[in-house]
Amino acid sequence: MSVPSRVELEAIAVRAGAVALGHFRHVKAERKADRTLVTAADREVEALLVGELSRLMPDAGIIGEEGTTREARGPHRIVLDPIDGTAAFVAGLGTWCICIGILEGASPVAGVVHLPRLRETYSAVGDEAFLDGELLPRLGAGSASGDRFILSHARSHARHRISYPGKVRALGSTAYHVALVARGSAEGALLGHTHVWDLVAPGAILRAVGGGYEYLRGGPIELDTLLDGRKAPGYILAGTPAAIAMLRAHVDRPA
Amino acid sequence: MSVPSRVELEAIAVRAGAVALGHFRHVKAERKADRTLVTAADREVEALLVGELSRLMPDAGIIGEEGTTREARGPHRIVLDPIDGTAAFVAGLGTWCICIGILEGASPVAGVVHLPRLRETYSAVGDEAFLDGELLPRLGAGSASGDRFILSHARSHARHRISYPGKVRALGSTAYHVALVARGSAEGALLGHTHVWDLVAPGAILRAVGGGYEYLRGGPIELDTLLDGRKAPGYILAGTPAAIAMLRAHVDRPA
Repeated sequence: MSVPSRVELEAIAVRAGAVALGHFRHVKAERKADRTLVTAADREVEALLVGELSRLMPDAGIIGEEGTTREARGPHRIVLDPIDGTAAFVAGLGTWCICIGILEGASPVAGVVHLPRLRETYSAVGDEAFLDGELLPRLGAGSASGDRFILSHARSHARHRISYPGKVRALGSTAYHVALVARGSAEGALLGHTHVWDLVAPGAILRAVGGGYEYLRGGPIELDTLLDGRKAPGYILAGTPAAIAMLRAHVDRPA
Repeated sequence: MSVPSRVELEAIAVRAGAVALGHFRHVKAERKADRTLVTAADREVEALLVGELSRLMPDAGIIGEEGTTREARGPHRIVLDPIDGTAAFVAGLGTWCICIGILEGASPVAGVVHLPRLRETYSAVGDEAFLDGELLPRLGAGSASGDRFILSHARSHARHRISYPGKVRALGSTAYHVALVARGSAEGALLGHTHVWDLVAPGAILRAVGGGYEYLRGGPIELDTLLDGRKAPGYILAGTPAAIAMLRAHVDRPA
């Protein structure tokens, strides 16, 4: 069984995005057991993604943030976050995204991060990553002309001391943050409260341009060990190896 | 001379937004004397805004971020930020906005904050504020169902200790931050490195729903004293009086 094409995966994400947009700005949120938010949009989008991807990859396992689990008959697992940034979605911010990731064993081999409101679609299958159909260059090839910035989770003021000399932005979605690192807009990202479904899709994109994840305290992220849905056991840095080293020097670990 | 209608002002902002969108994602930035960024888009949008607003309000003074100044013959001054969030614009983030503000003496009496990429238009003339043509309720009437958050400038990690118990987001544009407070999405905002052109347009919208600005150290902002274009002499809080008091208790002043 092969991985679907980039165009097939993007088309599914775009259809899912249209469903989510239908709920945006008039949706009621509930709290899940872990106190995070969920809406009817999250559930409807997950159902659509599971249905369409099951047809394309009938033997792949599936795990989705809103509860879908299916055992794999083979090396592939589809990892879904129907809406990453549900809190942003509920607040009316347009920075939420649809995440479709594919793991082969422990490796993220394909991913789509689609932002319906911002009309941006990041994707990768294998070693090539794209933004809206244009190939993204490998990281480190050039340097951005604008202000230096990194991205951070929204509770860093309470968890870390950050001595990074540039700007720190917090836009409301883990996967969007990682996608912006892959795009070369941000130097790196400090991720908090992450799960496998936030990490696989943008991780495939980041990997295709020469970046990756490490725990803030050191050590790699083994994505397949998080497939039971538990929270990643630590803050995570995203970027090139050089950016991760730079970030680690500028972010105090929590006590 | 009267203030133009909300519909007239919104239409001008939307035309300006279309010009800016034409440059978005393929623009080169330069540094101004104050080390902030400017692009051809900022200059072209300012020229469009000055031209169209001059026709509507020939006696009004004008001040624009990119250098326009015209003396007033009467009580009104048009205060323009062609692109608030130029650094976000240059980085490819869709959170930049077009700001048209009108001061009558020291009071912001009308404003439009238009986000072309996010397709959101905030506006107010007098005591009514709107988002995409729908009346915004006065602040404090209800409470949001989602996660509590505030907005902050992107250097707060280096300037303040923040003990706010919710999330802190930094989206890349002062005026968008204030608009989100006026909308009731965010509880308040901590603004840094502000000028009169960042403050008047969203200030008119915030005022219409019962909010306002104060310096973090205490005291009101006299917008007309900033018409010479100097940086506001201190960090600014935006919100209802209760939110400003709450924020002041949770944000340490810089040493």
